[in-house]
Parts: sequence; structure tokens; C-alpha cells
Amino acid sequence: MASEDKKAKRKLAPSKPLSGFQDLLPEQALAFHDAIDKITAVYKRYGYGPIDTPCIFQYETLAGDSGEISKQLYRWTQGKRDVALRFDLTVPLARYVAANEARLTFPFKRYHWGKVWRGERPQKGRYREFTQLDFDIVGTECPTADLEAVLVINDAMVALGLERFTIRLNDREVLNGVLAGLGLTEQAEDVLRIIDKLDKVGEQGVTKELSAELGLTTEVIDGLLDFTRLNLLDCSTAVISQLEQRYGDNEAVARGIERLDFMTVSAAAVLPEGRLIVDPAIARGLGYYTGPVFETVLDDQPEMGSVCSGGRYDDLASAYTKRRLPGVGASVGLSRLLAALEERQQDRPRGTPVIILLFGEVAISEGLRLRAAIHEAGIGAELYPQTPPGFGKPVSPKAQFRYASQKGFRFAIVLGEQEVAAQTVQLKNLDTTEQREIARAQLIETLTAAL
Amino acid sequence: MASEDKKAKRKLAPSKPLSGFQDLLPEQALAFHDAIDKITAVYKRYGYGPIDTPCIFQYETLAGDSGEISKQLYRWTQGKRDVALRFDLTVPLARYVAANEARLTFPFKRYHWGKVWRGERPQKGRYREFTQLDFDIVGTECPTADLEAVLVINDAMVALGLERFTIRLNDREVLNGVLAGLGLTEQAEDVLRIIDKLDKVGEQGVTKELSAELGLTTEVIDGLLDFTRLNLLDCSTAVISQLEQRYGDNEAVARGIERLDFMTVSAAAVLPEGRLIVDPAIARGLGYYTGPVFETVLDDQPEMGSVCSGGRYDDLASAYTKRRLPGVGASVGLSRLLAALEERQQDRPRGTPVIILLFGEVAISEGLRLRAAIHEAGIGAELYPQTPPGFGKPVSPKAQFRYASQKGFRFAIVLGEQEVAAQTVQLKNLDTTEQREIARAQLIETLTAAL
Repeated sequence: MASEDKKAKRKLAPSKPLSGFQDLLPEQALAFHDAIDKITAVYKRYGYGPIDTPCIFQYETLAGDSGEISKQLYRWTQGKRDVALRFDLTVPLARYVAANEARLTFPFKRYHWGKVWRGERPQKGRYREFTQLDFDIVGTECPTADLEAVLVINDAMVALGLERFTIRLNDREVLNGVLAGLGLTEQAEDVLRIIDKLDKVGEQGVTKELSAELGLTTEVIDGLLDFTRLNLLDCSTAVISQLEQRYGDNEAVARGIERLDFMTVSAAAVLPEGRLIVDPAIARGLGYYTGPVFETVLDDQPEMGSVCSGGRYDDLASAYTKRRLPGVGASVGLSRLLAALEERQQDRPRGTPVIILLFGEVAISEGLRLRAAIHEAGIGAELYPQTPPGFGKPVSPKAQFRYASQKGFRFAIVLGEQEVAAQTVQLKNLDTTEQREIARAQLIETLTAAL
Repeated sequence: MASEDKKAKRKLAPSKPLSGFQDLLPEQALAFHDAIDKITAVYKRYGYGPIDTPCIFQYETLAGDSGEISKQLYRWTQGKRDVALRFDLTVPLARYVAANEARLTFPFKRYHWGKVWRGERPQKGRYREFTQLDFDIVGTECPTADLEAVLVINDAMVALGLERFTIRLNDREVLNGVLAGLGLTEQAEDVLRIIDKLDKVGEQGVTKELSAELGLTTEVIDGLLDFTRLNLLDCSTAVISQLEQRYGDNEAVARGIERLDFMTVSAAAVLPEGRLIVDPAIARGLGYYTGPVFETVLDDQPEMGSVCSGGRYDDLASAYTKRRLPGVGASVGLSRLLAALEERQQDRPRGTPVIILLFGEVAISEGLRLRAAIHEAGIGAELYPQTPPGFGKPVSPKAQFRYASQKGFRFAIVLGEQEVAAQTVQLKNLDTTEQREIARAQLIETLTAAL
């Protein structure tokens, strides 16, 4: 008695996730895995294979040669080790390539999806633990690989059922050449970081920051905006021709223009018109990009920002190996894409389509055989866990149908004593509520046709 | 010059994983994801849907009502929080169900795969960071659900291409009743833990431990071994009949026997003979099991131990909610299964089957169009990142073929200037090295037939 009292009064342990962490409910997890499956199928189709790396590393490994990491880390001392959780999948790739160099085939094409952690202040739609989904090709300077990255992104978006989107392309060599022409080489990284905000804060906002933070003159700022405003042309051929005319004397710019030209002209062989356009205002904040950079914007939800982005880097793993490893890669912004898909009320992925309900005293083995036959036909089917005869009261039809409708099955198959005797089943379409009795011999055919 | 010297001499950051952590090389990751895809397809087919939970929790959440956790945790102070990484997927499930109770449909069927962390001393084949792959049905006491867990395991093994394996079934109520009859109720947990080692240390070893650690008399130990030796009958009907004869007076044992009988008799409707057998020596060390328990042994690699195990528990989430949630679940031992599959030299999963090689000055867009057409037919195809005309020396045929053979493609399609002009391709079977020229119009058909 005393111990029962104690149990009744005991305090329950906290069950909720920490702030900034999330549970995925079944319908969210279904959409999440469905999207990952579709995207990784595209990665694989293009010859990118999966890898896996640990989530925990020595701090020195994650810091690489930067000495310090600007991201807020989950970092602690384990035994005598200074360890931390990875904050992206790029640093783990860099060290992976260095650590396994001799066992990899170059150019090395990999995809990787997994969780990363950043101890930032949580905001709406931003979590401290989230999933990244990257692909990269490492060990080639070829612009064919840059173009491929764009095509992979295109196909991944299409695989998700998206059609109205634009991939905006620029080149860091063009940007750097233009900045050099304006005498901004030293401040290039800061300037690019601010220009990257154009779509969020507009020309006025950018002008203000360039002037206040970096002390640029009106003349220099106008020079920058003249360049970024080329994107108003909204036509790659026109932009490229203007770039050549205005900045083509600069050797770096000329190299960049040549790549942009190759990429857009070749892409026309396989992409719909207007899908890939040159946009001089695309900067990508990250310091390590050195060639083409690209972002993807949903035409009907531009306020979401880029849902897939990436670019070329000169040397991926310089912190870990002396071998120079240029490459190109991109990352799908999974949570943004899922939010976009949800807003659009696209057909949500549905779970297992069929449930079998046993009514009355029907032997469980009848249900097992039926389910096995449906599985055999490649159709998912659940059997409601009905109480076997002799083990207590059977679960009522009402309770079973409540479960079936809550979980969102498409078809319920009812098997009662009568149906077993007659070698039939009741087949109920749960979307339309239409129900009819059909011969068991016809069930598989009927389901296959309907699903 | 000075800065270049500095660069040349700078120390590289450590790239290797910490001890007890592992990188998956491309071929390992391919096998790993292939196995996960096949297993989760079975889970889904039976109506188990995915969920996701955080990896990091408050320590209090992971400790539940036990106050202390016996597993070695990755635990630290983050800000003011005492946090830790999950050490299994069962505790996260328990708290997930409690935290999201109102939004779940019961009986709740979920699968979950993800990493877990235990700071144990690393051993061969045991890692500090590893992947678990669980399914559970929560909120039912129905033996139909227990049977379903066995069938899911069976189908998962078959999906992996395994055929020679046995699922060994026992019931904790039978075990507890027998222990009670021997006066061992107080020591039940310790006795079961030791009995669980029977297949590793044999009767002698177990006898020694039972005597030395628990001080059991020879008589009591003989009583235990008489019971576990029933598994020598190797026939469920015979075992069940012996159990009834010897221990059937005990009420708990009788309940357990009834379940074992139901499960084995019903399973015969869908499982091959001998796949599921009652084995009184199966104990499962874990304290929370209360009903049927099962293990899966590979007939040709019994030394591996159980590759899939699980059982029924009375109350999953008592630490987090007052609602009683009985259920049954199981876990696939992914690393053991992968090791078993590797030892057997089963057909390994292969990556993208086709590579397109451009020779000479062929326009990249020719390759892009060809690849798009092959993708359209649902076939994976990679285009070697050939240098576009005008961007430098093309990559030699030899280097491209070396890449193709290292990466293990099945077919190489060669497109040179001649082939483009003649609207043909060279199709080389890389397994047989047979090569022939075929019309481009016939390529898709030929590949589809061959793959």
C-alpha cells in the first residue's frame, strides 16, 4: 500500500525535447523521409554514393586550420578529450576525404545526409539540431562538374513535384574581378556578405550597410549596384553580353564569363527555358567559394529565400592534407523545402494503404494469410491487432474503424465469419466510404488496380 | 614567399575519427543504406511509420525514473543544462509517446532508425557511435501484436536475402513462473542475465556463475538446466507439451504457454516449418520484458549470436506518463547483419550502373542529352566530368576507363566524334569487357533489357 502510494505520487520525468530541438510527428516524419528518399534517388542516379561519418569529433578536427569556429558548438570534455558535435557536413567531408584518400576514387562523388548541431538561439523554423543533405564532387576543376551540380538540384526539385523555380547562377571570379576594378579586393568578403542580403533588405538597406560598416563612397556603391542591377535583364545571354562589354578586360572576369556562358548554353540542351539564369547579385556569403555559385528560388514563394544552394571551391581539405582538392557541391535546404511543400498543400505522402479488420471470432491465421498475399503483391497492408479467440473480448468493429480512419488508410478489408465461410471480403474505400463484397480471389487484382 | 613557407610547414589538423568512431567507406555505406532501405520497407509494409526525435536530451529525461543510467553516457553541461546523447531508441520512444500522446493514434506503430552513443571501451565490431533500427507497437496487450513482431523480423531477414535462420521464442511469464517454483523470484533478474549467456559460455559456465555469484545450490541449478534443456527437443509442439506437463500448474506459466501456443500455431499459416521455435533457454537480459521474448540466429553463423531480438513490455512510458502503455518491439542488429552478409559474399549492392565517357572534342551537351534520356528510362547514369572544348586538354580515354573500372560501373557508353556523326554509341560491358557499336535509338532498350 505504502509503495503504491509512493508510485502514484512520484514525479514524472520531463518528456519534452529541449528548446530548439524537435520531435517529428508521424505525418511530418513521413513527409521528411519521403523527401529524403526522392532527393537521394536523384543523387544516386547521377552517380553520387552515400557515405557516413561520425557526429562527434575532436575539437581540433572540426576547427581545421581556422583555429576557431564561429558557429556555436556543442562542445565538452569527454574523458581527457576536447570533443564537439559536427555543425555541418562540409568539414566532415573535408576530413573524410583526407583520412580515406587512398581508398577513394577521384573525382570523388558522395552524398551525405545527417544531423548537425548549432547552439544558436532558436527561432521560428530554425532548430539547434537539424538535417543537412549535401552532395559534392571532389577532385576536379572541370566546369562540366559545376553544370552537373545545377542539373542535380534541378532534378531533385522536380522529383519533389516542384516545377516553378529558378536556379540563379553567378561566378565568384566575376564578382572578385568587378570588386578589384572598384578597389575593393581587401574588403571583398565583407562586401559579398552585405550584397548577399540584397533580396532581403533591398538596395537601400545594402547601400546603408556598405556605407556605414565599410565606409564605401557613393561612387563605389553605385559601381557595385550598376553591376548587381544587371539581373534586371533577366536573360542570361543579355547579362553575359553586358558583363563582357563592361568588365571583360579583367582576366578573372573573362574566365568567369566563359564558364557562365558554357554552363548556360550547355544546360539549354536539357533544362526548360528560364530555369537557369545568370544573376550578378548572387554572392553566397560563405568564404570558401571560388568559382560558380548558385541559389534556387521558388517562383511563387521568393520570400523563402534559396531552397538549394552551392558552388565551387578551390581546395576542400587543405586543413587536413597537402593534396589540393578542388570541387563543387550543394546542399538542399530540407526544412525550407518541406515548409514550402506543406504550404502548397501538395499531395502529402500517405502511409500503408490497406488495413485488414477481423470481426468476431475469426482465426488470426485467416488475417495473416490474407496479409501475406497482399504483401506478396507488393502492397502494404496492416492487420489490426485483434484479440485472438480465447484471449478475451474481441475489439469492436467501431473501435477498429476509428483506428483505421485516424491513421488514414485508403482501404479497409473486413473479414468476418460469414466472409471466411463464403471466401469473400468486404472491401471499403475509406476515402469515399463505398463498401462492397468481393470474392477473395479477386481482391489482389482489385487492390492493384485501385492503388 | 614567407607566407608560402609558412603554409608548407603548417601542421595539418587531425582527420581521423576518434577511437570507437567510424567512417563508412563508399562501398560500406552503400551496403548499409541498402540494408536500411530493405528493412524499413518491410516495417512500412506492416504499417509501421517513421518518427524522429532529437539526439540530445536533458539528463533527467534520459534517466527517466531510474535516477541513474547504467550505460556510459556522453553527458555534459550546455549553458546551464545537464544534457546527454541518447544511448538507445527505446527511452526516446517512451518519452516521445508521453510528450505527444494526444496527437498519436493508438495502438501506435512506429519505426525509428538513427544513431545512439555509448562511451564504452571500444572492441572489435563494437562502436561508441552506432545505428539502431527499431520498430514497436505501443498500446496493446494483444498476442497478435507479439506474433506480428516475429513476422516483421522474418520478412526483414528475407528482404536482406537471408533464408537460413531461426527465430527462437520464449515467454517471460513462463520463465518467471519456473523461477518462482525454484524459489528464485527475488534473484530473477540476475538469474536471467546469467542464463542469457548459455549460448556463449555453455552449461558449465552458467553453472559456475550461478553458484559463485548467486550462491545457488546444485539442486536449484539442475532444476534450471532441466528447464532450459527442453530446447534440445527442437520442436515447439514437444516443448510446449513438456512445459504444460512439468510447469503447467503455475498460473503465470499457463498464461505464457497459451501465448506460445497461439503464436507458433498461427505463425505456421505464413512461416516455413522450423522458422519459429520455442526455446526455453532464451532469456533476454533486459529487465523490462514481461511477455514473449525472441531472438534470431543465423543457422550457418550461430556464433554471431542474435541478429534481431525483442519482446513484450508491460508499461513503456511509466517514467513520463500515468497512462499505462504495454507493447512489443524489436531491434535489428544492423552491424552484425552487415558483417554476416559480408562474410557470405552475398551479391553486394552496386551503385549507379552506367557511365558515359566523352572522347575527344565532343560537345558536353551531347553527353547531357544522352544522360537525360537514360535517366528518363529510370536508369542511373553518370557522365564523366570531361573538360569542355575550349577549357583545356580533354581527359584521356585511359584515365576515364580507369575511373569507370575503379568505381565498378556495369556499362560504359563511349561517345566520340565518329559516334556523334553516325548517331551511334560504343556500349562496353565492363564485367565481360565485351564492346559493340549500337544505334543510339536502340541504346535505352538494350540497357533496360540488360539491367
